[in-house]
Amino acid sequence: MEKLDGKKISEKFLFEVKKEVEYLKNRLNKSPVLATVLVGDNPASKVYVSRKIKTCQKVGIGSMDIKLPSSIREGDLLNEIDRLNKNDDVNGILVQLPLPPHIDVEKVISFISPIKDVDGFHPVNLGNLLRGNDSLYPCTPFGIIKLLKEYDIQVEGKNCVIIGRSVIVGKPLALLLLKENGTVTICHSKSKNLKEISKSADILIAAIGKPGFVTPDYVKKGAVVIDVGINSISDKNYAFRIKGEVGLKSIEKKGYLLVGDVEYKTVSNIASYITPVPGGVGPLTISILMENTLKAFKLQRGIKND
Amino acid sequence: MEKLDGKKISEKFLFEVKKEVEYLKNRLNKSPVLATVLVGDNPASKVYVSRKIKTCQKVGIGSMDIKLPSSIREGDLLNEIDRLNKNDDVNGILVQLPLPPHIDVEKVISFISPIKDVDGFHPVNLGNLLRGNDSLYPCTPFGIIKLLKEYDIQVEGKNCVIIGRSVIVGKPLALLLLKENGTVTICHSKSKNLKEISKSADILIAAIGKPGFVTPDYVKKGAVVIDVGINSISDKNYAFRIKGEVGLKSIEKKGYLLVGDVEYKTVSNIASYITPVPGGVGPLTISILMENTLKAFKLQRGIKND
Repeated sequence: MEKLDGKKISEKFLFEVKKEVEYLKNRLNKSPVLATVLVGDNPASKVYVSRKIKTCQKVGIGSMDIKLPSSIREGDLLNEIDRLNKNDDVNGILVQLPLPPHIDVEKVISFISPIKDVDGFHPVNLGNLLRGNDSLYPCTPFGIIKLLKEYDIQVEGKNCVIIGRSVIVGKPLALLLLKENGTVTICHSKSKNLKEISKSADILIAAIGKPGFVTPDYVKKGAVVIDVGINSISDKNYAFRIKGEVGLKSIEKKGYLLVGDVEYKTVSNIASYITPVPGGVGPLTISILMENTLKAFKLQRGIKND
Repeated sequence: MEKLDGKKISEKFLFEVKKEVEYLKNRLNKSPVLATVLVGDNPASKVYVSRKIKTCQKVGIGSMDIKLPSSIREGDLLNEIDRLNKNDDVNGILVQLPLPPHIDVEKVISFISPIKDVDGFHPVNLGNLLRGNDSLYPCTPFGIIKLLKEYDIQVEGKNCVIIGRSVIVGKPLALLLLKENGTVTICHSKSKNLKEISKSADILIAAIGKPGFVTPDYVKKGAVVIDVGINSISDKNYAFRIKGEVGLKSIEKKGYLLVGDVEYKTVSNIASYITPVPGGVGPLTISILMENTLKAFKLQRGIKND
């Protein structure tokens, strides 16, 4: 079994972004700018946003850190986005999800200018992905595709099974895997014989948000296993089952353990490649966000992508 | 084996559209209008367009029949579409494909106002379908979903296998089947063990454009088989293999035979339900086009759909 080191690959991608940002800055005296919009004070959202801003700083992308109260009216949030849409100094707009329940997420996402939608969540970008046109692709799915390429894992003709049909991962990932000529199956909570289907996968992607859901009986010997889940658990037995001694120690030390949707300890004995959690898919998501911000900057200035 | 009678169901749908168009006309003194745009004089395209216009007349939808020379410049075609976008009397715009090679189809489709895109091909409509939002759905895939419902064929939890990954059928159909809680697999020319995968299907959809491609060894006993292909053949032996005596006679009489992607004669002995060609999926496509035109009319006037 080889570990798919998302952390290492992510650093490589970030370094490439940094180089190109420097090059463009020398040429144009301008750097890409990402505006992050955080509504309310969800602790996890705060962590995510600050991590994104830190990564911007690391690669030379400017950031604009917009914090709005959770009581904000939908119309006022849309006005804020309108300002960012019209501001030529802003190249990417990221509205951190989830939003408070009184705000219509679909309306907000559709309101972001597609050319600044660095999350790749806008209907226009998803529709262009379906049509096979170049667009800003959703970060996590595209990160997975790029990770597979880095390890020379061929997708063409392979049976790819995705567990989970979310808008953020499952559905766009299916389209991206199809684009790579994979045969793609999407399963979900309503699927029958999930084990059997998963076991037919050459490449298995778990994106359901259930800690340790994928056990060895879901996995064919030699399969590539991509774990998109990030779940926090505090049960010691569970921690041991999923991650072994390391997991146990983490709970004793920190009181919690981050685990994926895959029972890592046991499944890693069967898989040919597997992504760890943390350090697998997670870091790639953020490096693709940086790539998308750079791409958006170039699109907006008519600079061709390589 | 029961035949899925697309022709009969299509008549039912058209009757429902007709009733609602009449009702709205009485209320608003306005009827929906579909503008068809035909570029050049491809004989098949001419037939398709005239069939659409005839169906409009049948259900009381107005039509605007725009014919443009194949030499038209892309810019002039876009101007024409712009006029239709801005014309409040036009509710649906259908640009008949294919377009001449000097015209960028993607540009043209993206240029149609999404709210008038009755083909459901615009990125915004496809993206909204992916996001689970209501939109104008592509006609053929949505026709298939509605056909299954008419025959009380449950999709939830079923293994649905689609052969073909086109933008017009395969990919949007996958999203629609997911929406109905099916487990969905998309195969294509690069798929390996296509037979084995097809044979696992409870619901098998063939949309590849290869006459008689799906033979009994692709089909599980009792499967539902949906044949999206429409292919014209003239070989007598082939005609007999796919359709039996009927096929042979058609060739002798007309010189050609329309067949699907499924070897109908043999597969219909195995399937629980099967769509014939012609008279299966084809007529539904056109009735959904009428539904979409009516839906677009209502969306544009802020009239709620039931």
